Amino acid sequence: MRILHFWPLDPFSRQVRLALEEKSLRHDLQLEVPWERPDDLVSLNPAGTTPVLIDESGGGRRVIVESRAILEYLEETTPTPCLLPGGPAERAEARRLVDWFDRKYDGEVNAYLLHEKLEKRAQGLGSPDPAALRAGRDHLRWHLDYMAWLLESRDGLAGPRYTLADIAAAAHLSCADYLGDVPWDAFEPVKHWYQRVKCRPAFRGLLTDKLPGTPPSAHYADLDF
Amino acid sequence: MRILHFWPLDPFSRQVRLALEEKSLRHDLQLEVPWERPDDLVSLNPAGTTPVLIDESGGGRRVIVESRAILEYLEETTPTPCLLPGGPAERAEARRLVDWFDRKYDGEVNAYLLHEKLEKRAQGLGSPDPAALRAGRDHLRWHLDYMAWLLESRDGLAGPRYTLADIAAAAHLSCADYLGDVPWDAFEPVKHWYQRVKCRPAFRGLLTDKLPGTPPSAHYADLDF
Repeated sequence: MRILHFWPLDPFSRQVRLALEEKSLRHDLQLEVPWERPDDLVSLNPAGTTPVLIDESGGGRRVIVESRAILEYLEETTPTPCLLPGGPAERAEARRLVDWFDRKYDGEVNAYLLHEKLEKRAQGLGSPDPAALRAGRDHLRWHLDYMAWLLESRDGLAGPRYTLADIAAAAHLSCADYLGDVPWDAFEPVKHWYQRVKCRPAFRGLLTDKLPGTPPSAHYADLDF
Repeated sequence: MRILHFWPLDPFSRQVRLALEEKSLRHDLQLEVPWERPDDLVSLNPAGTTPVLIDESGGGRRVIVESRAILEYLEETTPTPCLLPGGPAERAEARRLVDWFDRKYDGEVNAYLLHEKLEKRAQGLGSPDPAALRAGRDHLRWHLDYMAWLLESRDGLAGPRYTLADIAAAAHLSCADYLGDVPWDAFEPVKHWYQRVKCRPAFRGLLTDKLPGTPPSAHYADLDF
């Protein structure tokens, strides 16, 4: 059996959920609230962050911590379907984009939009700062512009096949979309890409997420938005 | 031929330099000053960050961007010596620790010490803020404590063999050590680990680094510090 410790609007947990679904790996979800530093989570991961995967599928008990480590672990233990296709250079390009979203987008978009709208509310840190929200939305447009450029200049985000780069991008963008912050119509290539990703069966679970007190945007679960 | 675009006290560039040396892969170093956003670097990596590896060793020209992508690329293209030894769970633990240093340590230590002492000076952003330096040093002690606990509770940082976890930890800590900020004597297990790492032939290049205007600490290149 597998258990994924996750928080619904954590883009890192979402990447692992998508990969588990793409690979048809059965798992239970264990909700965590990372900023409360719950004992069970901290004992599994001293950083106190989600996601953490408990894998008891092969006998024994493996604790796999941190999204990129988990994604690589799933590639190694369940290679089909492959989410890092191609040769070493193509795989490096997919990994570059995972890092792009996990560090650059995370610091420039999530640190503003998710922090202001979700983390501050959940942690009782006051209401969102309008200047920070504006900055987050500006940065988001810049990232969407970069994605549009990638999608127009080549076949697919990191290449013609669906990769961890698509999963990372979709996991991060889906959180901003939950909050209604993505100006899809101004970035047609990205909108078409996200429509395709959103239609994948692996995406269904994410679209049913509902955070108490913060309902999703009207079009969040709409496949034809 | 290989060319590594790097900045000397960038912990991410340092990881790739160490891995290239461990694998005896000949390469030239091309100095970059990332905050000046030089055209050559930005054209290779739109994020404008080091490291970037140009690999023309197999014919053709591959541009490999971002430290973790480069490290995995080197593992795939030059598997011996292996820097991600063991089975999937052991490899996941090494990758978890790489992420620990690249995101957690980076945000809690480098963002204070390297930013205040190096980046602000280099970018003309004023003198270091004493409160930020204190915070960075406090965080560093916490990380050293965690490393000491790891090293005392098992054989090696991520296991008995030298892995990317050692390389990531050493690359990050070596920058703080250049600045003289590591209280080695208060963390004996970490000191002994770093002494062993520092003696590896692959480490020699890093110990000759000298940043104009910011000389290394007195013991920086000393193998018996």
